[in-house]
Amino acid sequence: MTVSLPARPAGVQRFEIDRVTAGAATPIEDVIAIEEPLEIRLAYSGPDGRRAEQSISVTMRTPGNDAELAAGFLFTEGIIRSADDVERIGPCGPPAANGLINVVRVELAESVAVDLDRLERHFYTSSSCGVCGKSSLEAVAVQGRYDINAAEFQLGADVLGSLPAALRSQQAAFEVTGGLHASGLFDSSGQILQVREDVGRHNALDKLIGHALMHGMLPLSRYGVIVSGRASFELLQKAMMAGLPMLAAVGAPSSLAVELARGFNMTLAGFVKPDLFNLYARPDRVK
Amino acid sequence: MTVSLPARPAGVQRFEIDRVTAGAATPIEDVIAIEEPLEIRLAYSGPDGRRAEQSISVTMRTPGNDAELAAGFLFTEGIIRSADDVERIGPCGPPAANGLINVVRVELAESVAVDLDRLERHFYTSSSCGVCGKSSLEAVAVQGRYDINAAEFQLGADVLGSLPAALRSQQAAFEVTGGLHASGLFDSSGQILQVREDVGRHNALDKLIGHALMHGMLPLSRYGVIVSGRASFELLQKAMMAGLPMLAAVGAPSSLAVELARGFNMTLAGFVKPDLFNLYARPDRVK
Repeated sequence: MTVSLPARPAGVQRFEIDRVTAGAATPIEDVIAIEEPLEIRLAYSGPDGRRAEQSISVTMRTPGNDAELAAGFLFTEGIIRSADDVERIGPCGPPAANGLINVVRVELAESVAVDLDRLERHFYTSSSCGVCGKSSLEAVAVQGRYDINAAEFQLGADVLGSLPAALRSQQAAFEVTGGLHASGLFDSSGQILQVREDVGRHNALDKLIGHALMHGMLPLSRYGVIVSGRASFELLQKAMMAGLPMLAAVGAPSSLAVELARGFNMTLAGFVKPDLFNLYARPDRVK
Repeated sequence: MTVSLPARPAGVQRFEIDRVTAGAATPIEDVIAIEEPLEIRLAYSGPDGRRAEQSISVTMRTPGNDAELAAGFLFTEGIIRSADDVERIGPCGPPAANGLINVVRVELAESVAVDLDRLERHFYTSSSCGVCGKSSLEAVAVQGRYDINAAEFQLGADVLGSLPAALRSQQAAFEVTGGLHASGLFDSSGQILQVREDVGRHNALDKLIGHALMHGMLPLSRYGVIVSGRASFELLQKAMMAGLPMLAAVGAPSSLAVELARGFNMTLAGFVKPDLFNLYARPDRVK
């Protein structure tokens, strides 16, 4: 995989604003997390062998690690299966007026078969009138390729409780903006190995998984992921695709996140604080 | 508009989980916010005058106020322009195995012209390689139909500071789950008139705007909206579509949210606490 995107652009921007304290306004310069659209265009070989190109996603994201975001998205959506499936990731056209590359082209290898019809609608949609949580879980089961039950991963309760502070200490842009979600990859000793930030929580996780994909680290069976917010179905689905045996959230999980974790042998922790957290699925991985 | 959906279903669900305190696990029954897919199907008259039906969206949502969610989504996406555009909202087929109606059919009036091609891709995507924040704002300008500059709305700094606590006091499901976003409609005296909760922040706002649409309250030029989390481009865009002159957020705004507010004369407040908040755009509406 060849990546030709500019070095990491700034993820924050300065604005003149008013801060109001006890009814009195003071003009200040504030630092705000950047949100800009990223369009992912896919160049691939169609069923007839001819090359085709199509826009497959527009997401509002914080600029930076865009190649990871594109690769991670393609992987967690089941469109690519390995880093070898991608020939090249680069800009599509010149930068936008603000200097940012907001359109990336992902060129797949000739050998990769792509079924874009599946992308036309969300993967958990059925054509009949029967969409529900259960059908969403069944769709995930079809996508998944790693047996998470086989993952050997355990960590101590004290280690788990220390993760939010460890994540926060590495959230460079959150510290100044207060406006970014983060995902952090950790090992069983509680060390945070990589952190990605984004205005969109799913993007932060896609960037992290994209990094792992590009560095030959999949499946992530010896790691866990900590997320700065709540645990949704979508985050569990992405973690499951990467083979992660554990997701720890600073916030609350949803019902379908709990059901996905239970159905796929993932450990799910929520409301994680030092000395206090909830375990919603597979508590045996926490000693 | 006729609505035939069941009375408000439960938005929370009980799970047996482990609570871990100082390394010791205790089994407890926990209450968790429900996340389930909702598919919106649109029945409309095509260009040839024949009726057609198509699935236009699947969103992960918390069950409840689903007719409001569907109506609000169609309105904030620019597919319908008034409540009269909708003939009927009802279930599509029988309930799912878990008893929930997860597919709703929205039947539009014969007279409504629908351009579904625009929905095929997100509205801020351009076909050229030039998508950026500026083009997103231009797309919003095409959609918007209310002049927010003309809205007469002002409130005191003390009233603004009181909104997060007022919103929280009406968040029934958040209190027990900690896992739901909320949007609340308030007037210039700081009274919260309606609150909607959802695992998805955009859904909570669509429900609130759908309620306003169904009750003939649009444009909401004499109200503001308070959101429990961060202020993204998407939330500002929806608020703008409803003609809201003010959005107040408990959390941080993104860069594009600030730019949208400034471009469309909306007042944007962030990090709102009693006696302390930031004003990012049109501070003159706060006395």
